[in-house]
Order: sequence, then structure tokens, then C-alpha cells
Amino acid sequence: MQVVDRYFEDFTAGEVRHTLGRTITEADVVLHAGQTGDFFPHHMDEHWCVHEAGLGGRIAHGTLIIAIAVGMTAGDVNPQAMSYGYDRIRFIKPVFLGDTIRVKAEVVGVADHPRRAELGRVDERVSVTNQHGETVLSLVHLYVVNKRGAHE
Amino acid sequence: MQVVDRYFEDFTAGEVRHTLGRTITEADVVLHAGQTGDFFPHHMDEHWCVHEAGLGGRIAHGTLIIAIAVGMTAGDVNPQAMSYGYDRIRFIKPVFLGDTIRVKAEVVGVADHPRRAELGRVDERVSVTNQHGETVLSLVHLYVVNKRGAHE
Amino acid sequence: MQVVDRYFEDFTAGEVRHTLGRTITEADVVLHAGQTGDFFPHHMDEHWCVHEAGLGGRIAHGTLIIAIAVGMTAGDVNPQAMSYGYDRIRFIKPVFLGDTIRVKAEVVGVADHPRRAELGRVDERVSVTNQHGETVLSLVHLYVVNKRGAHE
Amino acid sequence: MQVVDRYFEDFTAGEVRHTLGRTITEADVVLHAGQTGDFFPHHMDEHWCVHEAGLGGRIAHGTLIIAIAVGMTAGDVNPQAMSYGYDRIRFIKPVFLGDTIRVKAEVVGVADHPRRAELGRVDERVSVTNQHGETVLSLVHLYVVNKRGAHE
Amino acid sequence: MQVVDRYFEDFTAGEVRHTLGRTITEADVVLHAGQTGDFFPHHMDEHWCVHEAGLGGRIAHGTLIIAIAVGMTAGDVNPQAMSYGYDRIRFIKPVFLGDTIRVKAEVVGVADHPRRAELGRVDERVSVTNQHGETVLSLVHLYVVNKRGAHE
Amino acid sequence: MQVVDRYFEDFTAGEVRHTLGRTITEADVVLHAGQTGDFFPHHMDEHWCVHEAGLGGRIAHGTLIIAIAVGMTAGDVNPQAMSYGYDRIRFIKPVFLGDTIRVKAEVVGVADHPRRAELGRVDERVSVTNQHGETVLSLVHLYVVNKRGAHE
Repeated sequence: MQVVDRYFEDFTAGEVRHTLGRTITEADVVLHAGQTGDFFPHHMDEHWCVHEAGLGGRIAHGTLIIAIAVGMTAGDVNPQAMSYGYDRIRFIKPVFLGDTIRVKAEVVGVADHPRRAELGRVDERVSVTNQHGETVLSLVHLYVVNKRGAHE
Repeated sequence: MQVVDRYFEDFTAGEVRHTLGRTITEADVVLHAGQTGDFFPHHMDEHWCVHEAGLGGRIAHGTLIIAIAVGMTAGDVNPQAMSYGYDRIRFIKPVFLGDTIRVKAEVVGVADHPRRAELGRVDERVSVTNQHGETVLSLVHLYVVNKRGAHE
Repeated sequence: MQVVDRYFEDFTAGEVRHTLGRTITEADVVLHAGQTGDFFPHHMDEHWCVHEAGLGGRIAHGTLIIAIAVGMTAGDVNPQAMSYGYDRIRFIKPVFLGDTIRVKAEVVGVADHPRRAELGRVDERVSVTNQHGETVLSLVHLYVVNKRGAHE
Repeated sequence: MQVVDRYFEDFTAGEVRHTLGRTITEADVVLHAGQTGDFFPHHMDEHWCVHEAGLGGRIAHGTLIIAIAVGMTAGDVNPQAMSYGYDRIRFIKPVFLGDTIRVKAEVVGVADHPRRAELGRVDERVSVTNQHGETVLSLVHLYVVNKRGAHE
Repeated sequence: MQVVDRYFEDFTAGEVRHTLGRTITEADVVLHAGQTGDFFPHHMDEHWCVHEAGLGGRIAHGTLIIAIAVGMTAGDVNPQAMSYGYDRIRFIKPVFLGDTIRVKAEVVGVADHPRRAELGRVDERVSVTNQHGETVLSLVHLYVVNKRGAHE
Repeated sequence: MQVVDRYFEDFTAGEVRHTLGRTITEADVVLHAGQTGDFFPHHMDEHWCVHEAGLGGRIAHGTLIIAIAVGMTAGDVNPQAMSYGYDRIRFIKPVFLGDTIRVKAEVVGVADHPRRAELGRVDERVSVTNQHGETVLSLVHLYVVNKRGAHE
């Protein structure tokens, strides 16, 4: 982890980053249930998932996959950018315990800030795929970024 | 935690739920850094936050507050509803270690599913406030819900 | 989790609550060893359990099953009741990693407090069963509860 | 941690063990809430505890103190003894985050097993005190122990 | 855990301690990744380990095995000794998730302190073996220990 | 985290990397005690540390600081290098709960492998400082690295 200044002018629509993979483990799900208080049987009751719900096994919390996927894209610390939210988070397929995910982050929007001339907005689409190449989660990560001239 | 069937017809725009409070602790942030791999100094370096960044203290990860807030609204298990995503997640103010949050969930949208007559869509706005009454996070939680007739 | 006032007069011997299920995972046992400092090989050494002790696998700590079972029965917050202890905790069968437990809580005693007229005592039997329907743990949870008249 | 054989004949009523101290931390309580699913505001909401409930601060879960206290008394592995339960668990005073506990374990009962001649029963009273010397928890730990002759 | 005074004169080259076994679990590795921030695919990506790297499975972090092995040798608290470092830590074979390790600690050096007459140095070789009897890690733990006369 | 090939020829004695800072928290120490089983009062008993031992507060485990410091230097994944151990680990000053550490890693040795012509050895000195600029830990991290020609 390093500090690297990237200004608004340094972002280009279409640029893409790919992460390495990470296996979503039973321990991750147990810790996330403990962190959130969500002990729904879809995540915590293997017997019910397999024998009653026909799910094939336990499923990771949606918020776990969001948190890990966004975390996997957190590379350098950029003092010129600030994350202010996400749009269009969609759970496309379930992630089962033991699945391995990878994340692709693509700049899909670069625009002036509507009210502040010294800032720009950068939108990055975060797509999560499992080991079968299926997309399981999609969201758009929203940043405001300083323009270079404005802070020199 | 109980299983309670609530069908689409049982939801009304404007209905509101309030959670109790929960303090966001240093342990929560340390565990969330460990779960996500996001060790940015804003969350992990008290000395930098106070002495260099002028932040007043460490700040919780945005994904931590999302996960805890959504988890705090997870009450009964409703077999008739499925969460499929979130819209318009906005980080409005930082949450500092030691802040106490409460969550309000309000049904803000009830509509037929655009393509499937047996389903409806329910949108619930999740608003998180701190101990000063300030809103720190807002998002819209999206559900598809079975209609009563369709599954009888 | 909600705040619901239940007074002594609202409890009836024989009333029963049932929880959903929860799988006891390796992560739970590792975390509980870490919390308690109990790293006995019965819980932590798979090789010894299988090849030397003839146990068939690792066994969850008794205090883990107590804590999870009691936690699973913690539903609404009742400001009128206070838990003051447990009686007759008995480990009836081992719980193996991967077993799924459910909990039944039955009011088995409703009585005036021996010395304080404004209070009553409620005893709740907590019974834990595994996925084979076998009872693995039993205890009696002891509460003192305010009487309605006394606090109006 | 070592394996040490202690037979029934080796236990004497009145023998006492004392543990070192351990501070009950915010992290312990957060982890225990996560393990049990008990997020009651008495344990998790500092603001409510101080400003509304008049508690002075957050209180550790009873099951956390039981688990840690019993764990602190788990010294040598004794293949001749088996823990089968606890009696008369009483929460005498609250344990606040930051309190430091110590544990005293005293053999208070040594008796033949009522039905099996080759076994004896050993009862050990576990008493937990805080840094002010106040007793906060008491319980009786129940063991069955092999008699020496029976297994030679 | 007890306090036991052992002075320099009480250590003899060649004395050996053996620990019980402990299985290195997926939960241990997930927690250690979270503690250290090391999410290298060798530890976290089961799919890559098996299908691309030919490793046969995920491998525990070296620092995890060091920490657990040293922790397994931490028996009594000895106020007369202070650990000041380690020498020649060598990773000899990988430890896979699910492997069970045992630790042998042997005093391999007993010597006067080069500059302070009231102290001695004790070196203890820590050797870690897996369930196949293979040595996986070796290090020398370095202590300075008070001499008996000096503190009487 | 990215995959970046660096061959032996790409390392130069004297090159230096600096990490950002990280505060060592009570939660880190509690989790590390739980991971290692080392509940010595120096790490776990605030009351003893302050009132009896004169330490001023609890001290982080040495293995915790080693693990975090090495983890903080784990940047890119380099398929051409393999860590095989550490030399001369020295605990120079205690790290207290709440201290903030930074790490400097400097290549201090670049040499041919003594027996295998296609490999080189790279030694990296890892130095950990606290928020007062004091060095608290030092070690040498040992790598074997592929030479460029050998693997083309």
C-alpha cells in the first residue's frame, strides 16, 4: 500500500484493473454474521440449506461480497480522490462458501462535478466473477476527484 | 429471529421500522479491515488521523457501516421476499470509532414487477444516524416479493 | 431486535419458543478457543481426535454451545426481566464440528419471589438438539421479572 | 498445557487453585456478541448505557464471563476426568468493559458416583472476582473422575 | 498458567519439552490474513492453489506458524526470564490447511551474558513437526535469565 | 495487490521501501492471544501491568509485531522470489497498545546462492519504529530469487 496522487485528469473512461482471486470461506461468513448480526439460515444453517431449502449449501451475505470486492480494489491510497457512495448494487448470483471470486474495476464515467469547478466525478464499475466465470455481483463505485490545476 | 411470511400486499409505502443503537467499536473496524483487506490509514492509523490528516480520529469503513446497518434491519426471516440489491448508497458524514448509530427503515416504493405478474417490488430506504442525530449513511434496499394469490 | 415489555403476569408455565437452526463451524470453535484460552486437543487437534482418541472428530467446547444456545433464545429486549443465572447445565451428548443445533425454550416455573412482593421468578428450560433430533445440552435459565402493578 | 493423570483419589475437598488476572476488553464483548448473536444494548450501545440506562457503561455478556472463567481454570489435560455440567450459576455483579477478573477454583465435593462403583464425582466451585475484590460470578463445575483401581 | 520462578541455574542444555498437537485451520489462516494484511493467493485462493499453482491446496502464512508454535511453548510465566528475540527461523516445508502440528522445545545453549554478570543467556530450539513427522519450521528462541544469587 | 516479476538482477543493495503507519490496537492483541494461546498477563491484564508490574500498560506480543510488520511489507506478489526464513529477530523496545508503527525494509544483501547457480539470495532488513521514532523491532527477511537467464 502506497500513497500515489492521481488527479481527475489522470482517469480515462475504459481503463481496467483486475484483482487476483480470493476464496470466500466459512470463516469469512461466520465473522460477517458476527459483525452484522445477520444469522439468517441461508448463511448459517448448512442442514437447512441442503435438506430443506434446496440451495445446495450455505450462501455468503451480500454485504460480505460487497465489502470484500470493494476491499480487493483498494490499492494505492490516493489523496486526491474521495469515495462518496455506490450506485446500482445488484446481487446477480449467489456466492457459496468455498467459491473463489475475482474482481474487475473499469472506469465507466469521467465528468465535471455539476456544481464545483475544481472537482470531477469518476465512476468505476466493479464486477465480481466466481471460479466458473459467472458474474455474481455488480456495482458502480462513485468518487469525487480533485482536478490538477485546482490544487497546485 | 423467526420465520414470518409477509407478501407483497402486506407492505405499505410509508411504514417505518426503527432499530436500537449500536456503538461502532475499534474492534469492529479492526475486524472489518481484516475481512476486506482495506488497511487504509483513515481506518488504521490513529496517529496519522489525529496529527497529520486533521480528521480528529479514525473513521469506520463505509462498507462496515453498510453491512452493520443492513444487518440491524434484518429482523424476521420472510420466505416471500428476496433482496436483490441496493440503490443510491451515499456516505453523508464519517462515522468515527466510538460513535453510536441507529437505523430507520422506511418503505418508499411498492410497485408491480415490470415483467412478472406474480411478483412485486418493495423499496426500503435505510437511513443511519449517529448519536448527534446526524444522518451518516443512506441507501435504498431493493426487494422482490411474492404476491399472495400467486403462491397459494 | 425490539424492546417489548413483558411483565411477570404475562408468562405462563408451558409456553414454548423454538429457534431456527445454526451449524456449529470450525470457525466458531477456533474463535471460542481464542476467547477462552481452552485449546484442549478435544477441540483443536483433528488428528488426535480421529486417530488416537477415537472421537470421530473435534468436539465443540461446552461453553460455546451454552453461549450460542442462550444467544439464540435472546429475542426481544424485555426491560421488565433480568437474567440472574442458570441451573442444572448438563452436557448430554457431544456436539461435533459441522453439527446443526436448534433450541427449544419452555417456561417451566412461574413463582412469586421469596422475599420481594413486587417481583416474580420465571424459569425457562433451554434444550438444545442436533440434526439427528438428539438432545445435546439442557439448562434452566433463571429470570426475575417485575410484576405489572408494582411498576405502574 | 500438559497431559497429567489425576484420579478420583487424588482430589481432596478444600484444595484451591487461583488463576492470574485477565482484563475483559471491548474486543472480547464484540467477538462474543458476534459468536452468540446477542447484540442487546446493555453490551453494544455505549451511548444508551451511559445516557439512558444509567449503567455507567457497557456490561459483558454473562455467557462471556462463564466461558472465560471456566477457560482460565482449564490447566492440565486430565484423561481421567470428564466435565458433565455446571450447577448454580449466579451472576452476582455486572462485569464492565475494562474490568479485570481473577478466578478461584475450590474442590467443594468429593463423592462416590451414585450408580457406578468405578467412578467418583468431584464438584469444583468457580468464583470470579473483579479488580475491586468483589465476587461477580459463581458456579459449581461438575466432573466424573475415574477411580485409580478401576482402570489399572 | 501459573507463575513459576526459574533462574538461570535451573536450565540445563538438552532438556526438552513437548507440546500437544494443534490443527491449523482455515479459520486460523483467514484470521491471520486479516491480522497481517497478507492476502497472497498462496494463502487465500484455493482455486489458484489447486488449479494453477500446483500446490495441492492453500498454505498457512509463515508468521502464523511461528506465532502458534511459540505460543504453544508458552507454559508457565517465569518472572526471571525475558524473551529478547529469535535466531535462524527457517521455513522447511509448507503447512497446509488441515495439517496438525506439534512442537518440541530443547534447551540448546546455556551461557553467561557477555557483559552483565548477574544474567545468563538461554537458547531454546523450537522445532515444529506435522502429522507425518516431517519438520516444517525451526527457530532458536533467545532468553536472558536472572541468576539466582544476583536477585536474592 | 498485483503480480510483478522481479528477478535477482532487479534487486540492489541499499534500496529501501517505507510503509504507511498502523496503530496496534487492543483488538489486535486480543485476537493474537486467541490465535496463539498466549494469555500472559503482560498482554492481557491491564490491572497487573499498571498496578503491579510497573509497565505502564499492556504490551503487544512479539509475534504479533513480527507478523504485522512482515505483512505490511508484503506488497506485490513476486513469482520469482520465495521467502525461506528470518535471521536476527530482536525485540528492542516494547510496543504498547495504542502505539502506531511504521516499517522500513532495506535490501542489505544480494549474493549468489552457495550451491545453485540459477538462484540468488536477497536479504532485506525490516525495521519497525513507533510514533516516537524509536526502533522497536528488527529482523532480516531471507529470500531466494530466480536469476533472469535461468528461467527464460
